[in-house]
Formats: sequence, structure tokens, C-alpha cells
Amino acid sequence: MQFHHHGYVSGEPRVLPAAGTGIDRPEELPDEVDVLIVGTGPAGMITAAQLSRYPRVTTRIVERRGGRLEVGQADGIQARSVETFQAFGFANRIVDEAYRITTMSFWKPDPADPKRIVRSSRVPDDPTGISEFPHLIVNQARVQDYFAEYMAHSPSRMKPDFGLEFQSLTITEGDEYPVAVTLRHTTGPRTGEDRVVRAKYVVGCDGARSAVRESIGRRLVGDQALHAWGVMDVLAVTDFPDIRTKCAIQSHDGGNILLIPREGGSLFRMYVDLGEVSEDDRGAVRKTTIDQIIARANAIMRPYTLDVKNVAWHSVYEVGHRLTDKFDDVPVGDTRLPRVFITGDACHTHSAKAGQGMNVSMQDGFNIGWKLGHVLDGRGPASLLATYSAERQLIAKNLIDFDKEWSTLMAARPEDLADPAELEEFYVKTFEFPSGFMTCYQPSVLIAEPDHQHLATGFPIGKRFKSAPVMRVCDANPVHLGHHAQADGRWRIYVFASAAAVAEFADWLGNSPDSPVVAHTPKNLDIDAWFDVKVIYPQPYEEVDLGEVPEIFLPRTGPFSLIDYEKVYAADPAEDIFAARGISPDGAVVVVRPDQYVANVLPLTATAELAAFFAPIFTAD
Amino acid sequence: MQFHHHGYVSGEPRVLPAAGTGIDRPEELPDEVDVLIVGTGPAGMITAAQLSRYPRVTTRIVERRGGRLEVGQADGIQARSVETFQAFGFANRIVDEAYRITTMSFWKPDPADPKRIVRSSRVPDDPTGISEFPHLIVNQARVQDYFAEYMAHSPSRMKPDFGLEFQSLTITEGDEYPVAVTLRHTTGPRTGEDRVVRAKYVVGCDGARSAVRESIGRRLVGDQALHAWGVMDVLAVTDFPDIRTKCAIQSHDGGNILLIPREGGSLFRMYVDLGEVSEDDRGAVRKTTIDQIIARANAIMRPYTLDVKNVAWHSVYEVGHRLTDKFDDVPVGDTRLPRVFITGDACHTHSAKAGQGMNVSMQDGFNIGWKLGHVLDGRGPASLLATYSAERQLIAKNLIDFDKEWSTLMAARPEDLADPAELEEFYVKTFEFPSGFMTCYQPSVLIAEPDHQHLATGFPIGKRFKSAPVMRVCDANPVHLGHHAQADGRWRIYVFASAAAVAEFADWLGNSPDSPVVAHTPKNLDIDAWFDVKVIYPQPYEEVDLGEVPEIFLPRTGPFSLIDYEKVYAADPAEDIFAARGISPDGAVVVVRPDQYVANVLPLTATAELAAFFAPIFTAD
Ligand SMILES: Cc1cc2nc3c(=O)[nH]c(=O)nc-3n(C[C@H](O)[C@H](O)[C@H](O)COP(=O)(O)OP(=O)(O)OC[C@H]3O[C@@H](n4cnc5c(N)ncnc54)[C@H](O)[C@@H]3O)c2cc1C
Ligand SMILES: Cc1cc2nc3c(=O)[nH]c(=O)nc-3n(C[C@H](O)[C@H](O)[C@H](O)COP(=O)(O)OP(=O)(O)OC[C@H]3O[C@@H](n4cnc5c(N)ncnc54)[C@H](O)[C@@H]3O)c2cc1C
Repeated sequence: MQFHHHGYVSGEPRVLPAAGTGIDRPEELPDEVDVLIVGTGPAGMITAAQLSRYPRVTTRIVERRGGRLEVGQADGIQARSVETFQAFGFANRIVDEAYRITTMSFWKPDPADPKRIVRSSRVPDDPTGISEFPHLIVNQARVQDYFAEYMAHSPSRMKPDFGLEFQSLTITEGDEYPVAVTLRHTTGPRTGEDRVVRAKYVVGCDGARSAVRESIGRRLVGDQALHAWGVMDVLAVTDFPDIRTKCAIQSHDGGNILLIPREGGSLFRMYVDLGEVSEDDRGAVRKTTIDQIIARANAIMRPYTLDVKNVAWHSVYEVGHRLTDKFDDVPVGDTRLPRVFITGDACHTHSAKAGQGMNVSMQDGFNIGWKLGHVLDGRGPASLLATYSAERQLIAKNLIDFDKEWSTLMAARPEDLADPAELEEFYVKTFEFPSGFMTCYQPSVLIAEPDHQHLATGFPIGKRFKSAPVMRVCDANPVHLGHHAQADGRWRIYVFASAAAVAEFADWLGNSPDSPVVAHTPKNLDIDAWFDVKVIYPQPYEEVDLGEVPEIFLPRTGPFSLIDYEKVYAADPAEDIFAARGISPDGAVVVVRPDQYVANVLPLTATAELAAFFAPIFTAD
Repeated sequence: MQFHHHGYVSGEPRVLPAAGTGIDRPEELPDEVDVLIVGTGPAGMITAAQLSRYPRVTTRIVERRGGRLEVGQADGIQARSVETFQAFGFANRIVDEAYRITTMSFWKPDPADPKRIVRSSRVPDDPTGISEFPHLIVNQARVQDYFAEYMAHSPSRMKPDFGLEFQSLTITEGDEYPVAVTLRHTTGPRTGEDRVVRAKYVVGCDGARSAVRESIGRRLVGDQALHAWGVMDVLAVTDFPDIRTKCAIQSHDGGNILLIPREGGSLFRMYVDLGEVSEDDRGAVRKTTIDQIIARANAIMRPYTLDVKNVAWHSVYEVGHRLTDKFDDVPVGDTRLPRVFITGDACHTHSAKAGQGMNVSMQDGFNIGWKLGHVLDGRGPASLLATYSAERQLIAKNLIDFDKEWSTLMAARPEDLADPAELEEFYVKTFEFPSGFMTCYQPSVLIAEPDHQHLATGFPIGKRFKSAPVMRVCDANPVHLGHHAQADGRWRIYVFASAAAVAEFADWLGNSPDSPVVAHTPKNLDIDAWFDVKVIYPQPYEEVDLGEVPEIFLPRTGPFSLIDYEKVYAADPAEDIFAARGISPDGAVVVVRPDQYVANVLPLTATAELAAFFAPIFTAD
């Protein structure tokens, strides 16, 4: 964590100095804003948290509820989300309070006595070591709380505007604030009153029944019937030995339960399968009572019993695999630029079993967040915004395909499976998918063709930058290279090379008028304001002479022009990043987007190519 | 972290429900209190934080300053202190924001050109892996902030009473509140007014010029002359390559600097040696200006230069090795029970170089804190309080002896050392001392004779319980056994044994009227309220059948009588705790005090001995 750099910070260093719109930020929602976010679920909160780091942009986030979410909804947090939390500074804290999944147990009818369940297998949850972060379970409300804290501590001092419900919008292209949004007060003395707010952009993060989606005429298309689950978060006494382990439980009569232990050591969630619900069910399934859910759970778990003492939350959760064809307001085939975006459940919904909803929604928000910040801060052209729907719609589609396969397997009776181990095998084989790491963005203005991928095979272009341990040279601290990257909207250029190989490239990057860093960073800002440039040497840190390191890696910044020493790394001999990530002995330049996705891999000689890659991204309208 | 156990906790789980004195806690300092703590330095804050977990006890902490400490004073945090922070729930957060020391560099005159300094060696800071926690540097103010947060979130909702200066006290034995303390308002409308508060006990944590110490007639005795250092926390530009590494720098003319990089990546502290200051100096040394300190630093560091851009704090810090003969108000030889205690700098002071002050002061507070809580909560007799001075005075004396040797070495000219490597060797050899792990309490009512030490050689009686990795059985989570222990005032009984070996002992511990747990825990409280009993099995966790674990290790507690699953562990085959801590194949019972010190090691058959150990501790007056 870096601070004190602009002068001594006496209190909590996580509270950044207010800047721009964060200075004297009006309590009341203004009539004109740059970005209006609708909904404070995971998608809306991460979008707002990301935009809170662009204090020159006026962003507000409205929510129909009168205050924070209290209980319920999603709870599965993939490792990819925890990586994301790291960039927002709260990974360690949420890990400390969450339940951590390390194994999953499968319970099935006892072949000797099918009316009883037995444990058929126990599989590791992350057999592949896919991330340095764990797979967690914690209530959605807490995730939202941490994002709220992050925003409040950001330069823009953002806070949700509770008690305002989105009604409708109209777009008048040509106006400075082309989107006119009608909002209705849902709490306080003005309850029921409408008001109009004008925005440059609107992000609909308003969940599966999204009114923003309706207002731009998009429809969720997919499963005809919804799948229903009786969900309960309960405190109970039981003799079931795996009550603190994630379990898939199948009974002889086709009943099945997904058991998710929860944070805090006592609470757990059960999803009791209620099957497919046809359109003409007319809400009948929603009348399933908590007593019925508990009775069904007891029947499935025989010979074990569940004595429920306290119900924290319960619901009948109905969901299908549904998707919109685009995630913005631009009709297919049209080339005008988008003004309204939809994210999360507003544009794709998944079964509860794969635990996707909250996670994929946050990646939507992370994607659109920095792009809006980049454009509205004047760093790049509005045309970049079209990449949001292009990138995320495909991911959602792939995920739904995966999710369908998984849900079908989970719901199958044992006798319907070709091989009784099919379920476990599928789980282990496809682990990268539900843990959030299969995302691979296709080539676009923001993602290069993989022409030089062989120079760094462990950093696949289009996938998230997978961190690895390195030594920080200045203080001999073993650190994770990726953890230095904050969700601060900056692009990152990682230069892997020996001192001899790096000199010429570093000189170009630091001094040439063609260098993207020199060309695009405004003269009145610090040289590291928009690009965060780091070097990683292959030799042990003791052999790196800081006096010889090129200045672009030791920039002088801030009011005192102090040297920033935290951009110079060396391979950790115990766990060599060059070997672990397949980096060529000739070195490699790895370009990473603000949302942590690898955008390009280049040789150190490809200066023109690097300049050409950044030119369209950093040429503002 | 355990919560939700008494019902769903929607918000921050680190905020515990208010209880006892924390319900409607008066803002205004009451006229009568159980414990009055004087001073909000590290010693006072940890004492208060510990007592905040005893909500039936009325504790208040007064401070002369009008608010929190802003800047300056100590910054060295030993691994032992970070272990302690873990018990107070903020280790990870302070680690995240602190500077971490991994190596120390020694700079000396270049033999070829003595007017220039060169790096003579670089030694690892913790060559012995003495703790799973790191050695940190972070400002004292932040340590105090974290304790303040902990208290505020504790059941007693404690907050310091700022703006009140201790003046004097009188003791009238026989009164219910025998200590009458005169306090003076230092801020606000009542500035200058005195008021009297009556207390059962007073803890003087009021620093080196302690008025509490004066009031009980004790004197700091030791060095005639004080050693003076020009200390500065600065932001600077320099070409000195080790500016982000802890360094001892000696110049050819006997000058020397201790360089301590600070949290945040830019700030650093320098202690520039100003030598011994005789009593008749009359404050002359204190007139050393910041410009003089900077000039001296530049002279010592030649050929490197230091261009100071911003001074966050500076001071002339004068300190000697001084100690009081006892840490309470009971005259030597007298057998009456203590009413007033002194802690930290009030009873022992050290040179700045070994970085002891803040750390040893916190261990004082941790020691007296739980003892006062234990006695005032009615768990044990007031006679236990006499162990505070007995235990801590000896530790302070040993530390001062060590510190003198270290400071002498640090201040020596290279040519005066028998061997130029003497300094480095001493540093590495004695590392356990400054890192805070040499403390070994002598046998007393609270520390057993080491009769059965051979059963667990890695848990030396009298030393702090050194944690080790284990598997939690219920959820297959790899955890650190010691990290489950909170600073909640409970005694811990760790039972290491196979399922076969443990049955009889567990039955006795859970059910026999002679068992300390059964005999001493009040019937209206949960069975784990005063004793936290855990079992660690030698076999892999998959082989532990939770259905067979004795109930004392799976207690049913709280309003719903839920099973607590987090007391059952298994050895982690990757790092077997039985091997790592030398535990006998026959098993062992390891008793640990609320302040994390091992109090006893016993065979599973020594039930009478275990009962006899606890009887005097848990027999209230
Ligand atoms: C009742 C419920 C139960 C769920 N249970 C589960 C579960 O058991 N397991 C699981 O994995 N997932 C569950 N989910 C889904 C999961 O919560 C979502 O996948 C995830 O939260 C998606 O995040 P999001 O930000 O897109 O939408 P959401 O988290 O749904 O957030 C949408 C937000 O927008 C607000 N909003 C809606 N309309 C408006 C409007 N017109 N104006 C202003 N604000 C508006 C809502 O109040 C809400 O705060 C559940 C969702 C709901 C609503
Ligand atoms: C100015 C200064 C500079 C220091 N510099 C260094 C350094 O560079 N390096 C280092 O290792 N250590 C330094 N120390 C020492 C280090 O801070 C202590 O060793 C450590 O803080 C001991 O903790 P403590 O709680 O015993 O006392 P302190 O931290 O000194 O706390 C005592 C508290 O009691 C309050 N107090 C004092 N008298 C009264 C009264 N009559 N009534 C009410 N409140 C009172 C004080 O305001 C203070 O908050 C310094 C101390 C001081 C005072």
C-alpha cells in the first residue's frame, strides 16, 4: 500500500484525499450527471466503485430500496472475484470473514439401502491451483458493503442515492446530456413523486426484472420454464457430518439438495430442488412454505435429521438460463454509439447451482466501469464503449451453455447417468469455468491479435493477468506482482527483461515522443498517472543495482518529485516468474488493461507496434 | 471468525453485540469505576482493549491529550506484537499497511577510502522463522487506532476519555473503591478544573514521566546519562540505494545512523546518534535543529546525498536504560495486595535502537489486562494480581541487559570491535530477544513447574504458545491452530491425542464434577464461556469421524444450542504439528493463558493435577 507520498497521512491510509467531484459533493442527486447507475447489486456497486476512482466524472448510483441489502440473495464468490476484490483493497478482509470452500462432497443413495444417503466421494474444490485466492462463500450484502466503503473512501466520496426507483428513459442524441431518466421517490416525504435526471450515460444494474432493459426494448430470451429452488439460510442442529462442507446430495427419489456452509461457522444455506416451473404455474411454486422446504430437506437427508432452530432468510428462487442479444441500446447492425448499458441479471440469468450470478455480474461492471471512466475523463474515444456489449455478451452466452450442462447433470437421477462418477469428473474437469477464469476476450481495439504470444505463454492475451510471486528490489519483500495493481483505471505495462536487454526499450518508453506514455500522458500530470510501468528482472534481487535502473521504472512523482521504488522487481529464485509464465529469455512486454485482462504481448523491439496499439485507445474524440 | 451463532448478523461481523456496561454506556466518566487506566499509549490501549472484552467490568481510560496521537514516537513492531494483534483481530490489516522488514544492511567506512561508506553486509531479519508473522514498521498512532477500533466494537463499547490529566491518587484500603484519583480537565469548557474519580484499581500507562509512578513513590533507576538521538520522519530524494531497507550506517568519524523505512513506500525515519547527554546538559541537546540533523545525516552518508523535501515529524529523543524495582504499589517485602500498577515506559525505558518500547509495553498491558478482568469478573482471587509485577519486572530487567549490550555495539567505532563482523553476528544470534520471544515466565500460581515438558517439547512452559498449521476437520480448511484464539479472556486447553487415547480424558473433562471446566464454569453460562477446549488428532482429517468426537470438543452453546464445530482439528500431513512441536505419541494436554503463554503441559492421565492447577486460579475471593 502506498501513501505519505504527498505528505504525511496521519489516519486511515485507505481513505484517499477527496478530489474533483468528491470535494463538496452534493448530498442531493444533481439534475445532470455524467453516469447514472441504476441498482446497487454487485454489478452496480462495482461499476460505481470503479468510477469513484475517476473524480472528474460525476457518477451517481440510485437504488429503489431505502437502504443497504440486509440478508439473502447470492453468496458464492469465485476466486476470480476475490482477485478483483484485491484490486479494490478488501480481499484479505472478506477472506477473513468468509467461509472458504476447499472440498466438495457428493452424497448419493446407499447402494445397499437406497433410502439412506451415503457419501460417495469428496473432491478438492480447486485441484488446479488456478488462483492464489480462495473460493469463498459470503453474503452478497457484505460484498456490497465493502464496495460501498471503497467508494466512500475514494477521491469522489461516492454514496448510493437510496429510495429512488428508475421508471423510464428517453434518448435525445445531440444534447450534452442525451439520456433523460425519470426516477420516483420510494421513501421519505417525497414518496411517489417523480423527477427527471439527465445523464450522458446510463448503466442498468437493476436485476432480472430490469426496467432499464425494458426501456431500451431488450428482452431476456431462453428457457421457457424457470427452475425453482427452495432456498433457506438457517441455524440448525444436525447429525449430518458434512454440514460444514459444500455438498451435492441426491436421494433415491430424485430429490436433491445443494448444501452451502456459510460464513461465521454456524449458518448454512440449502437449495432444495423444486424442479421446473412452467409459465402457467401462476406463482403456485412461490407459495412453498419454509416448513415444506425443511420437511423436504429432512426427507432427502435420511437417515440424518435437521432440527432447524432459526431461519435467517428463505425464498423460492426461480431462475432460468436467459440472455439478451446485446448489452446496450444500439440495435444489432446499427453503428451509432451506445448511451445505455445493461449488466448482470438484467441481461443474463443462470441457475443457482453453478453460483455464477454475482460473479459474472461483477465482471460486467468492472468491464463497463473503466471504459466509461476512460472516455469521460477524456483519455479515449467514445467508440471504445461499443466493446462492452461485444465482449461481455459472448462471455455470458458461453457461461449459460456451461451452466445448462452442469445443471442438467446435477438434477439427473443417478440411474440416468452413463457413469456414476460423471458428475464429479465434470466438476473437476471444468473447474476453470465456474471459478471465473475461462473468460478470454476476442481481438478488438482493446485486445491485440496473439502474434507474439510465444514470448509469454503464461499470459494468454484476452485472459486475466495471472499474478505470480516476485521480489520487490528496493526492500527485498516477497510480493505478488499482480497485487500492486489497484482498480485505479490505469493501464499497465510490465517489462520482463534483463538489465542489458531493457536499456534501449526503457529509454524509448521514457523519452521518445512516440512512446505511448510520453505521447498520451498530459504534461500537467505525473508520468505514471495513466500508465503504470514496471520492470521485472530475471536475476536475484541482490544483483539488481537500483542506481542503474532506467528512470521510467523509478519515476519521480507528486508534489515533492519523490522516487517511486515500487515498480522494480526481480524474479524470486524460489518460484521463478520467467519459468512459471513461460517468458522468453529475450524478454517480453505485457500490456494489461485496467480490468486486469492481458491486452497485448510484444517483443522489446516492437516499439512501433506498441505505439500503434495504444494510439486508438488514447485518442480522445 | 465465528458469528451468526446467536442469530443472523447483517452488518460488520467484527462489531460484537453490546453487553453489560456497553449497554447505554455513559459518555461522561462516572465517579466510580472498577479500573481506571491512565494514558492512551500502546500499554494503555491494549489494557483497555483487553478489558473491553469483560463487559461486566467498568473500565475507563483517560488521556491528557485532547484526542488521538497524530504522528511520531515509536514505529517498530516485533513479530510477537503482530501475533498479539492477531488475537485482537487486526493483524492482517496492519500487515497490509505496514512496512515489512526482511533484511538489514550494514554500511561502514570503505576500507579503501574511509570517507565514503559502503555496504559491508546484508543479513536476513528473521533467519529463524520464529513466527508466522512478519516484523513490521508502522507508526505508533496506527497501532493505537486499531486498538481504539477494537474497543469500540467490543461488548463494552469502550472509548478513551480524552482531555483528562492524572494529578495524584490516595489509597484508602477497606473502601469498595479504595483509590481516589484526582484528574484535571485539559480541554473544553472545564479546562483547569479538577475532579475526583474512585477506582478499585488504577493502571498507570502514562509514559516515561509517569505521574502515577510518582504517586506510588517508585523511581526509574538506571543510566546516569541519557542517550540522545535526532529522530526525523522525512520524505526525501536520495541516491542511497538502500533507502527502503533497514540499515545501520557507521561513518569513519564515529557518526552513526539507524535508517528505518516506513509504511507507505516513501517516508523513512532516521535516528542520528547525538551521543550521551549528561545531567548537566540542561536541555542543550534538545535545541538540536532539524537542519542540524539533516546536515549530520548527509555528512555520515557521504558519498550519498539526502535532499529532504518534507519533514513529517522530528524530535530529539533522549532515553536511558531505566527500570523501577517493582511494577505496583506494594512495597518490597510487603504482602498486601496491589491496587495500582504501572506499565510500559512508566516503569522501564530502553534505547531506541532495539525498537523495544512499544512492544514490551504492550505485553505489560496484555498481562495486567486479563488478570484484572479475571479478578473483577469474579473468576479468580485478587492475589493473582501480584503476579503482574513479579512476571513483568524480570522480563524488563532481562531486556534492558540485552539492550545495553546491543546499544554499546551499535555505537562502537569499527576499530573498537574485536571482529568487524561482531555486530552482525550478535544481531543474528540474539534475534529471538528483540523480536519478543525470549519471554519465559517463571513458575507461579499461573505457570506450572515443567514436570511433564517432555510430552510437548515445542510448547515450552512459560513461553508464548507458538502456533502451527493444522486442518480444521469440519470444513477441511488449513488453518493456524493459534489463530482461533482471540483476546477474549478465556483459558485454553489443547488436547493432542488419538481418538482412542482421548476418550477417557474427554469424558472426565466434559462430565466429571472435578473437571475444571465443569467445576468453575457458572451453570448459567455456556460451557465454553471461560475455558476454550480443543482437540487435535494425529490422523488425517478425512479419518476423523465427527460422529465419534466427544461432546466437550463439540459443545452446544448459545440460545439455539448449536454445535460449535471449530474446536476439532487434525494434523496436516504436509506439516505435522505433532512432529513440529515434539508431541508425545501418548498425547499431551497443553494449557494456555488468556495472554497466549503456555501455563502447563500434562499427560492425559493427570486429571487430578489439572484440577489442582486450576483450583487456585478459579477460586474467587
Ligand atoms: C430475491 C433474490 C434471491 C436470489 N437468490 C439467489 C440465490 O439463492 N443464489 C444465487 O446465486 N443468486 C441468487 N439471486 C441472484 C443474485 O442475487 C444475482 O445473480 C446477483 O445479485 C446479480 O447482481 P446484479 O447486480 O445484476 O443484480 P441484483 O443483485 O439483483 O441487484 C439489482 C438491484 O437493483 C435494484 N433495482 C431493481 N429495480 C430497480 C429500479 N427500477 N430502480 C432502482 N433500483 C432498482 C434492486 O433493488 C437491487 O438492489 C437472487 C436474487 C434475488 C433478487
Ligand atoms: C516524544 C516521544 C518520542 C519517542 N520517540 C521514540 C522513538 O523515536 N523510537 C522509539 O522506539 N520510541 C520512542 N518513544 C517511546 C515510545 O513511544 C514508548 O516506548 C512507547 O510508546 C511506550 O508506550 P507507553 O504506552 O508505555 O507510553 P506512551 O506511548 O508514552 O504513552 C503514554 C500516554 O500517557 C499520556 N499521559 C502522560 N501523562 C499523563 C497524565 N498525567 N495523565 C493522563 N495521560 C497522561 C501521554 O499523553 C501518552 O498518550 C518516544 C516517546 C515519546 C513520548
